[in-house]
Amino acid sequence: MSIKHFIQSQINSNFKLEDELPFPTRIKHLAKNDIITKYHQIEQNAYFLLNGIVKISMIRNEEDERILEFFFPNSFFSSYTSFLTQEPSNVEIQALSDCEVEVIKQSDMQEAYKTSMLANELGRIVAEKYYIHKTNREKDFLTKSATERYQALVNYRPELVQQIPVHQIAKYLGIEAESLSRIRKTIF
Amino acid sequence: MSIKHFIQSQINSNFKLEDELPFPTRIKHLAKNDIITKYHQIEQNAYFLLNGIVKISMIRNEEDERILEFFFPNSFFSSYTSFLTQEPSNVEIQALSDCEVEVIKQSDMQEAYKTSMLANELGRIVAEKYYIHKTNREKDFLTKSATERYQALVNYRPELVQQIPVHQIAKYLGIEAESLSRIRKTIF
Repeated sequence: MSIKHFIQSQINSNFKLEDELPFPTRIKHLAKNDIITKYHQIEQNAYFLLNGIVKISMIRNEEDERILEFFFPNSFFSSYTSFLTQEPSNVEIQALSDCEVEVIKQSDMQEAYKTSMLANELGRIVAEKYYIHKTNREKDFLTKSATERYQALVNYRPELVQQIPVHQIAKYLGIEAESLSRIRKTIF
Repeated sequence: MSIKHFIQSQINSNFKLEDELPFPTRIKHLAKNDIITKYHQIEQNAYFLLNGIVKISMIRNEEDERILEFFFPNSFFSSYTSFLTQEPSNVEIQALSDCEVEVIKQSDMQEAYKTSMLANELGRIVAEKYYIHKTNREKDFLTKSATERYQALVNYRPELVQQIPVHQIAKYLGIEAESLSRIRKTIF
C-alpha cells in the first residue's frame, strides 16, 4: 500500500491511483536500527511506512526508555508534535527492521495545505486518528491493569505481540520485563 | 470573537466576515452549572465558546473527579473523541459560569468536510492544536513536579489561576487541595 492507496481507501474513494498527489513524495530505504529522527532534531518529514517496523520512544534517563508507539506498514509516522510546531523533537524514531518508507517533506505539506482540499483532508484525518489513539492509550493507563492492557494487545494487535521482543513490549506497557513474563504465564 | 473571527485570525486571513461559513451555526445560552455533554452521551455538537468558562472532566469514582481541561472564550470544545467516533463520551462537560456558545452540529460538519476546503482546514487545525495540547500536558505530568506545573499555569495561563477555584485547579493538576495550598504558600 502507498500513500495513494491510503487516500483511496481512507479519505476519498474517488481518488484514482493515476491522479497526482498534492505534494511530492520520494521512496527511501532504511536499515535495521537506523535512527530516523533524533532527539532535539526538528522534524522535517512525515513518513508513510511501506514495509518494516518502526518504534517511537522517549528516554527520561539512560536506563529508562519509554516506548510510545510501534508502527507497522500502511500507517503514517513522524515526530508529530515537532512536525507541527517545528520545535525540537521530544522523541526518537528508530527502524526496528529494514524499512521502506514514502517521505513527504514538511515544507511541501505546508505548501499543499494552502491550496489543496485533499491535503487538508488527509492532514485532518491523520491528526484525528493520532488524537483518538493517544486518548485511548491514556484511558487504558488510567483504567486498566497491566494484565488487561497486555490482554488487549493480544486481542487487538496480535501482529505487535508476535513481532516485537517481550522486553520492548514491557517498555510499551510501562512495566518491568519480569512482570510481563509473569503476566504471560498466567495468560498462556 | 466568533467562529468567523477565529477563521480569519487562525486559518485564512482572506476570509471575510461577510463570507458564508461552510456549515450552519446557532447561538445558545447556558446557565452556570448546566451539563453540556453527559457521560455516555454521544457528542452531537462542537462548540465555540463566546463568553464564559467551561470544564471537561472524567470521574473514575464518586470522590475522584479528574479535570482534563478548562476552556475560556475564543476556543472550540466538545467531547472530542465522541464527536469524532460517535461512540459514548468518556467525559462530562459543564458550564462553570453563564456561557454563550456558537454550536455546530456534528452531522453538518461531516457534510461540510465532503466539499469544503475551509471546513477541512478548520478541522485539521483544531485536531492538531488538541493533539499538541494533549502531548504537552502528558509531558508535563511525566517531567515536572506539581510545583513546577502550578508555576507554569501562573506564568502562561494567569486567567485560569485567577478565575478558577483552588480546589478545581488541584483536580486539574492531579493533586490534593492541601498540597496546592502548601505550593501556593511557597510561591507567593
